[in-house]
Amino acid sequence: MNWKVRIKTMLKKSILDPQGQAVAGGLEALGYKNIADVHVGKSMELVVKNIDDEKEVCQQVEEMCRRLLANIVIEDYTYQIEKMEG
Amino acid sequence: MNWKVRIKTMLKKSILDPQGQAVAGGLEALGYKNIADVHVGKSMELVVKNIDDEKEVCQQVEEMCRRLLANIVIEDYTYQIEKMEG
Repeated sequence: MNWKVRIKTMLKKSILDPQGQAVAGGLEALGYKNIADVHVGKSMELVVKNIDDEKEVCQQVEEMCRRLLANIVIEDYTYQIEKMEG
Repeated sequence: MNWKVRIKTMLKKSILDPQGQAVAGGLEALGYKNIADVHVGKSMELVVKNIDDEKEVCQQVEEMCRRLLANIVIEDYTYQIEKMEG
């Protein structure tokens, strides 16, 4: 069975987010004065193949996040998995 | 009323995604052989303040995506909005 996985990484709240500040500044410069708390992170989509057990997929995704996809010192990550048809 | 907005941008399927390829290569090098279709995009979170009408929020977010947040020539964007309490 194959699984669609969507992973999102964001800087932890305590870490300075210069990219978020740049986007906030850009929006303000364009006239959007009602914007606050801008944060920029990374989103990843991938397919995990040939695993039947949902728990096992989650375990693998967790492991991939910790080993490669996220920098867990400065980033939090969340993910969703979804069974693929066919 | 304030709204939490989550925006995701991804390269269009027809556009080469070298960052996705790099991540796929990294995962394979770590021994994950069951991974396919890796795509990397950007995720943004922000707060839109002082609008009561949901439709108006969506309009503003659409406009911000097209003007600044996404490069609509090469990227697709999706977003979710959520009313904030208080």
